[in-house]
Amino acid sequence: MNDCIFCKIIEGSIPSNKVYEDEHVLAFMDVAPVSKGHTLLIPKQHVKDLFEMPEEVARNLYAAAPKIANAIKKAFNPQGMNTLNNNGSFAGQTVFHYHLHFIPRYDETDGFQMKWEVKQNEFTPDKLKSIAEEIKDNLNK
Amino acid sequence: MNDCIFCKIIEGSIPSNKVYEDEHVLAFMDVAPVSKGHTLLIPKQHVKDLFEMPEEVARNLYAAAPKIANAIKKAFNPQGMNTLNNNGSFAGQTVFHYHLHFIPRYDETDGFQMKWEVKQNEFTPDKLKSIAEEIKDNLNK
Repeated sequence: MNDCIFCKIIEGSIPSNKVYEDEHVLAFMDVAPVSKGHTLLIPKQHVKDLFEMPEEVARNLYAAAPKIANAIKKAFNPQGMNTLNNNGSFAGQTVFHYHLHFIPRYDETDGFQMKWEVKQNEFTPDKLKSIAEEIKDNLNK
Repeated sequence: MNDCIFCKIIEGSIPSNKVYEDEHVLAFMDVAPVSKGHTLLIPKQHVKDLFEMPEEVARNLYAAAPKIANAIKKAFNPQGMNTLNNNGSFAGQTVFHYHLHFIPRYDETDGFQMKWEVKQNEFTPDKLKSIAEEIKDNLNK
């Protein structure tokens, strides 16, 4: 897409620090990193988000994920790694070309931290069962 | 693996609320949800984390991701969605069979929130370039 910054990175009209490239995907350093080695993996085909991603694009994208994760791990030996994809502004998406963040985690000074509050009281076993049914009903719509 | 809770869910010896299943993957409700529709996608092959995932397993896993994301979206119309995979205890992994979280986001009461602190002062353009080189050097090791 003409006005997409990630498409311009793929074309080479905007520079980037590339770490991996194949026919289908490109991986490069996030210019606004939250930790050392923070890398983005994107499909070369312009796809806004996971919702709009064709199955073949998804297949070829994630095929590259383990090798990128391992290269970052070997380079910097983090204590752990989160991979994260944000869909929609409300979920933190700021560039509307799908991207998967690889965020190596080192210590409590990492720029990425999660609040993880389980809502088991709200989602009782019966409620979870009905939620699963609703998702299943929408799988082939 | 014998003592893996997710392998037992795949076998059916531990019950779960399944939403999608094919030859390669299973998706089911997280029993400890942080928001309505919080779903897990796992490979049927026991793989500890993204680092240990064979390329073919990755390929077949993510092929299912768009359809699951869309079914959750159609069912509950969230404002956004994060997909997240935690590798290693330090990054929040608690079950050591790879899993991808689908976390629909609705409002400020969601049980999942991120702290996202960009470290641009620390990672100058020169530093980012050398970090990229280190990752590239480790890609084929």
